[in-house]
Amino acid sequence: MFKKILIANRGEIALRIIRTCREMGIKTVAVYSKADEESLHVRFADEAVCIGPPPSSESYLKISNIIAAAEITNADAIHPGYGFLAENSKFSKICAEHNIKFIGASPDMIDRMGDKASAKETMKAAGVPCIPGSEGIIKDFAECEKLANEAGYPVMLKATAGGGGKGMRGVWKKENLKKAWDDARQEASAAFGNDGMYLEKLIEEPRHIEIQVVGDSTGKACHLSERDCSIQRRHQKLTEETPSPFMTTKLRKDMGNAAVKAAEFIKYEGAGTVEFLVDKHRNFYFMEMNTRIQVEHPITEQVIDFDLIREQILVAAGVPISGKNYTPKLHSIECRINAEDPYNDFRPSPGKITVLHAPGGHGVRLDTHVYAGYTIPPNYDSMIAKLITTAQTREEAISKMKRALDEFVIEGVKTTIPFHRQLMDHPDYVAGNYTTAFMNDWHMNPPEEE
Amino acid sequence: MFKKILIANRGEIALRIIRTCREMGIKTVAVYSKADEESLHVRFADEAVCIGPPPSSESYLKISNIIAAAEITNADAIHPGYGFLAENSKFSKICAEHNIKFIGASPDMIDRMGDKASAKETMKAAGVPCIPGSEGIIKDFAECEKLANEAGYPVMLKATAGGGGKGMRGVWKKENLKKAWDDARQEASAAFGNDGMYLEKLIEEPRHIEIQVVGDSTGKACHLSERDCSIQRRHQKLTEETPSPFMTTKLRKDMGNAAVKAAEFIKYEGAGTVEFLVDKHRNFYFMEMNTRIQVEHPITEQVIDFDLIREQILVAAGVPISGKNYTPKLHSIECRINAEDPYNDFRPSPGKITVLHAPGGHGVRLDTHVYAGYTIPPNYDSMIAKLITTAQTREEAISKMKRALDEFVIEGVKTTIPFHRQLMDHPDYVAGNYTTAFMNDWHMNPPEEE
Repeated sequence: MFKKILIANRGEIALRIIRTCREMGIKTVAVYSKADEESLHVRFADEAVCIGPPPSSESYLKISNIIAAAEITNADAIHPGYGFLAENSKFSKICAEHNIKFIGASPDMIDRMGDKASAKETMKAAGVPCIPGSEGIIKDFAECEKLANEAGYPVMLKATAGGGGKGMRGVWKKENLKKAWDDARQEASAAFGNDGMYLEKLIEEPRHIEIQVVGDSTGKACHLSERDCSIQRRHQKLTEETPSPFMTTKLRKDMGNAAVKAAEFIKYEGAGTVEFLVDKHRNFYFMEMNTRIQVEHPITEQVIDFDLIREQILVAAGVPISGKNYTPKLHSIECRINAEDPYNDFRPSPGKITVLHAPGGHGVRLDTHVYAGYTIPPNYDSMIAKLITTAQTREEAISKMKRALDEFVIEGVKTTIPFHRQLMDHPDYVAGNYTTAFMNDWHMNPPEEE
Repeated sequence: MFKKILIANRGEIALRIIRTCREMGIKTVAVYSKADEESLHVRFADEAVCIGPPPSSESYLKISNIIAAAEITNADAIHPGYGFLAENSKFSKICAEHNIKFIGASPDMIDRMGDKASAKETMKAAGVPCIPGSEGIIKDFAECEKLANEAGYPVMLKATAGGGGKGMRGVWKKENLKKAWDDARQEASAAFGNDGMYLEKLIEEPRHIEIQVVGDSTGKACHLSERDCSIQRRHQKLTEETPSPFMTTKLRKDMGNAAVKAAEFIKYEGAGTVEFLVDKHRNFYFMEMNTRIQVEHPITEQVIDFDLIREQILVAAGVPISGKNYTPKLHSIECRINAEDPYNDFRPSPGKITVLHAPGGHGVRLDTHVYAGYTIPPNYDSMIAKLITTAQTREEAISKMKRALDEFVIEGVKTTIPFHRQLMDHPDYVAGNYTTAFMNDWHMNPPEEE
């Protein structure tokens, strides 16, 4: 087992990893930028090394400084957390060259899954369903017709030079294809001076549902069920839950099998996530694979009863996994609490937290790196806490979340707590009836009068 | 279902009950003494009524004031928590007379189980093993010899007027009984002017292991496994865990059956606890039954995945229980954090909490009614928080507790956190090798130099 792990990250995930290391009896090294001197990950690690000033390019992304910190402190492994260098194949490679175990994917796997086109090729070869469509620019209308028939209607025509919705046409029926083709090309030509088009199957009312996988050095993989992350704003997840309210036993089995097939095909080692789009008919399509721990991993931990960071460390140390697939027996929800003003277009709200009272009690978990007196620096991601509730049913987990959000007091900065309170009361959310379009269609009510 | 529940208690248990009521959509009424105006249970309840000044006899024990508060606020049920009026049959009776549902045992059950002699009689009749011994004062040595033979050696002779160990003799062999009888009587006569003696089987190296039961109005009961509460100081529990490290599958089955038999015999309704002494040979003996929720109920909740306060409310509303017995699949430990100085004979340390930082993350639960800026009044019990950790194994639950205790910052008052940190490192505790004598034999190490 590793003796000392350097955590190449900050914020809640750095603290999260330090906690598991302490529980496993592994020493920890925190690295921090000058803006993070007061952060809890610095306080709770056994050692801490300042690796430069903000912005991240001068510190958390500065590979040479991080490797130097690991060498000075004799760390024998590095956990990258998520973001920053977690999916940087160069960093993974340099760690290996310095005889430091990178707790994550190999450089080769990161490269294969990091590039969208290469990931799609690999997944097709593995037999994992991908969004059908053209492989490049469509030659002529005859090819367009052929591709549309193969993909199945509805399809989406997209201008290769496109953006802002221009040169895009959704087509639900074959007889409308020609007109859409002509209109879209004309529009693209006028807008971008380029009428090159490609085609993809149009995923109607899609949900973002991802499968957590774990693989080990023997080439074996298993899945730990799904997380529904459809509630997003500008591709940023706001809240996640497991099980997905849209899931069926058959769909879980099929998606789980596909994710395990994907992981085993590339001999994936460690914890990873296979993200899918799921249409309203419960067809699912590979979107991407994240070769790292995800922000939303705690909801999976709550329903499988074990620690995913521990699992990552064990796998990196060569311990084989049990190989058992999991089906959630409880329901768990995570709300990401960001220092943002939800009543003002989610504008970031850094600054000093003057009062903090954490919710607690039955079924409540809080992962946070902030405390009363802490100043949130303006330099980084605005997430300051993850509030997770777990109960026997979805209804109870929502009630518990509402209760916990009501108890959570953060003063001095604006937070997204009011957003989550409104969300937990939204009839479509309560009914589990939401897609990735949810946030486009819904806007916050004004603040209640106190 | 109830519309509004009055919580006739204070501190963490009042907040605990309010949380569940909120999650169930039931309105709450807090009652409070003038010393508790700043308490969170007052802030989080829908309504709050001041019922008098400290001490408790003027407020939390003042039945007329509590009933008046329930009538003014139109509460249709009262949850008594633990302590105060939770096992007061008069209060239970008065609630019924006022058409307010008492969420607890009936007056008759409280009386039957509240008196030790009557409880023992009832349990004997139910076929639950009780500590064998004399039924009253022993007539003469011939009877003493007969009773000792029936109980089985070792036995304990006790002066009926006894106290402070005087007039007590443990006897391990038959041939020593006569001398012990003579000596103890002589000592009792000299000390108390009364040489009346009784005899009980001496329980060697006993553990305090209790079984959580739930019964419903149909007369059905089930058990939710055990809690080991052997770590006590002057009969005050300090830490509890489930499963007991001393438990075997057979013993759990036998003790569980006995507890269910006890509950069904008296047609027990609600959540209750049957406390047993278990000797080193794994014989177990009924000690007492608590007809209320226990302080240490959260560790059971952590391993059975449901809410015991919710279960109490449902049963009180006439909802039948599932009737399923539970075997813990996880391990959970609770440390009671008291405002006491463990380095100074656990002397209470009331006062203002200036800084509070709560531990969090995977497998950590905190139940507390205090916060930074809160002043702990000197009038009540010194418990200020219950820290609970849960993991797949006992070893991991201990590691998690150590990590969580290290993170827990409370400034302004002394707390028992340093005691628990030492306990979690104690070789006998770590080995699960402890009895109710543990705290007699062990004293804290001096504080570490900072």
